[in-house]
Amino acid sequence: MCGIVAEYNPFHNGHQYHLEETREKLKADVIIVVMSGDFLQRGEPAIVDKWSRARAALMNGADMVVELPTDFSVQPADFFAEGAVSILNSLGCDLISFGSEDGNSQAFREAADLYIENEAELDDLFKQAHQQEKTYARNFSDVINTYFDQFPLDLTQPNNMLGFAYAKEIRRNRYDMAIETIPRKNSHYHDHELDSSFNIASATAIRRTLLEKRQPCTAVESFVPAEMYDALNSQPLISWEDLFLLLDYRLSVMSIEELSQIYLMETGLEYRLKEKISDAVSMREFIEAVKTKQLTWVSLQRICCHILMNNTKQNMIMSEKEIEAVRLLGFTEAGRDYIGRHKKEWSVNLVSNLHKRTAVNFEQDIKAGHIYRLADKERIRQQDFYTKPINFIDINTLN
Amino acid sequence: MCGIVAEYNPFHNGHQYHLEETREKLKADVIIVVMSGDFLQRGEPAIVDKWSRARAALMNGADMVVELPTDFSVQPADFFAEGAVSILNSLGCDLISFGSEDGNSQAFREAADLYIENEAELDDLFKQAHQQEKTYARNFSDVINTYFDQFPLDLTQPNNMLGFAYAKEIRRNRYDMAIETIPRKNSHYHDHELDSSFNIASATAIRRTLLEKRQPCTAVESFVPAEMYDALNSQPLISWEDLFLLLDYRLSVMSIEELSQIYLMETGLEYRLKEKISDAVSMREFIEAVKTKQLTWVSLQRICCHILMNNTKQNMIMSEKEIEAVRLLGFTEAGRDYIGRHKKEWSVNLVSNLHKRTAVNFEQDIKAGHIYRLADKERIRQQDFYTKPINFIDINTLN
Repeated sequence: MCGIVAEYNPFHNGHQYHLEETREKLKADVIIVVMSGDFLQRGEPAIVDKWSRARAALMNGADMVVELPTDFSVQPADFFAEGAVSILNSLGCDLISFGSEDGNSQAFREAADLYIENEAELDDLFKQAHQQEKTYARNFSDVINTYFDQFPLDLTQPNNMLGFAYAKEIRRNRYDMAIETIPRKNSHYHDHELDSSFNIASATAIRRTLLEKRQPCTAVESFVPAEMYDALNSQPLISWEDLFLLLDYRLSVMSIEELSQIYLMETGLEYRLKEKISDAVSMREFIEAVKTKQLTWVSLQRICCHILMNNTKQNMIMSEKEIEAVRLLGFTEAGRDYIGRHKKEWSVNLVSNLHKRTAVNFEQDIKAGHIYRLADKERIRQQDFYTKPINFIDINTLN
Repeated sequence: MCGIVAEYNPFHNGHQYHLEETREKLKADVIIVVMSGDFLQRGEPAIVDKWSRARAALMNGADMVVELPTDFSVQPADFFAEGAVSILNSLGCDLISFGSEDGNSQAFREAADLYIENEAELDDLFKQAHQQEKTYARNFSDVINTYFDQFPLDLTQPNNMLGFAYAKEIRRNRYDMAIETIPRKNSHYHDHELDSSFNIASATAIRRTLLEKRQPCTAVESFVPAEMYDALNSQPLISWEDLFLLLDYRLSVMSIEELSQIYLMETGLEYRLKEKISDAVSMREFIEAVKTKQLTWVSLQRICCHILMNNTKQNMIMSEKEIEAVRLLGFTEAGRDYIGRHKKEWSVNLVSNLHKRTAVNFEQDIKAGHIYRLADKERIRQQDFYTKPINFIDINTLN
């Protein structure tokens, strides 16, 4: 049973390749994906809704997709990994597979063990380094490279960094889960342009093209599976710009005191946000005006997500967040069989349909889903209450 | 020095007639208008901004327009009257002039005195009556008509009710202010249709026509002065529907506990609002779904305004609200002379321009103004900080 952590924003050929390699090279019988829902790790709304992204994954190699709770998805890498890996473990995965720039699984295992052995000293160094005018990611890899003569991984690469976070979680918690990475093919995470000589591009490049050109966007057709391409052309494409009005409103109504209580808010930033919002007319303009050397675009976007969702430091004490239930977004026949055979062994409830009783575990995701739909002017309401998991068995019958 | 309380939503020929009659019949030398800003007594945004409405008033008979603070404008008649009349008194008005269905000034004076003499007993009766399934206005006039054999005023008429509230405030506080009413001409407040055989229609009928037909709206041309007609055709027309997205968002993010703390919130209503918002796709549909026999459209709209502005019971303790400064929206030459001669005698500061130091007195109005502009998709920003009072002297020179 192999687990994958994903966002699929959008699902593209590189993701399909990763699923195929996981199936073939790692001999995975069943593949479970834990996927971010409407709001993502980089602190932004998904370009299309979670249902379309889950469906594309199921039609291209995944057997079961569950939702990573919003409390864990809009987070720095560590909490993101903590939530995702803990869910995979609860669902009985004995193997994790992730894409990386490095591609050497042994390097991830060694890096994680090295880190955990020296965690106390490293934490002190991080605290000192945080005073400097550098981004968190830069500080992190600088500290690692100063402390260790030769660290097995290049942590300036974003997918290495995420894989490293999964590996750390697994080793620290002594989860019974093998760590395997598949090297990424043809594309670097930070590529911003599509290169038509390949059929694999980064999600960043695909999103950028989609949001610039809007629909119909034939430019991305060769880079994504047909199911995803259809979804990208039939649904509204959502970006932070579509939610900017709500953020603008929210910032203008909140007091400095309330803002200072928002999760991940840095000291003094509340004043800067209040000041800059009054002149900004787009999210891009706003973030450009607020960001500093230490506060990256991504960390600001994450804080803005928490402002939008009214997540306070108080209600986001992560050490108190236990994942008791997981939302099932969809499954194939193999997924259904796996669920049937194993669900009694699991330490989390797998929830297929939301109603009054089950909804209590998903209040944050329902709120996030409601806000997400407000970005869409022709919005379909109630994506959470009236939507059943995608049943790939029925899809096959219908096709 | 004559004072007028107004909303001018929009300014129409009836208002112009009222200003003319005030000037001629009541021999008013200078006319000061205290006008609601962006959000009004009925709990809705003004159809066009406060600047256009003030300008139309100045070009059609008013000498000076000041803004009624939002804390007093989005209120039941009593608090609305309290704020407005206290400002007129602070600015040295020795006469108030208002339009009414009744038209008999002596009736208002007698009604106010009668009421004040019996206030304690009447308050008890109101409290008992409030248990019944009737609207506040209905209860009010029922109690009055049961208690008094013959009450001098018909309080089921909305303008009589407002005038009565002003008269009560004046008599209760022993303000040195004469009470005069001008009978309304040709139109009833509740008329919903325009009647082309007249050139005077109710603001309600004009608004309804404007919001149904949108621009250019020649149907209202004969009912409003030219300056107002131009503004109505050159500016976005704002209604609650333009703010519904923000309300929807706000309700989905607020907890039941937070909602219960909102000013004017009735017990249990917080649950009903949360429940009904998830399916409503327009303000009209939402209010229709929420309203009951006791909770009228207008009271619900008012509560929704306070939700939008995050006004809590705690920060809206009205007995603690003192009006220390008043925002000047515009003046004529006579207005300027009057200000120059008398401002030293006033117990309130008259503020022409907002900047850091003066803004502290207008935080609520600045917030309201910011939210109001969010309703306009092509919004002009910062209506409060970069706008100077309308100077009718310069307008005349320019024309």
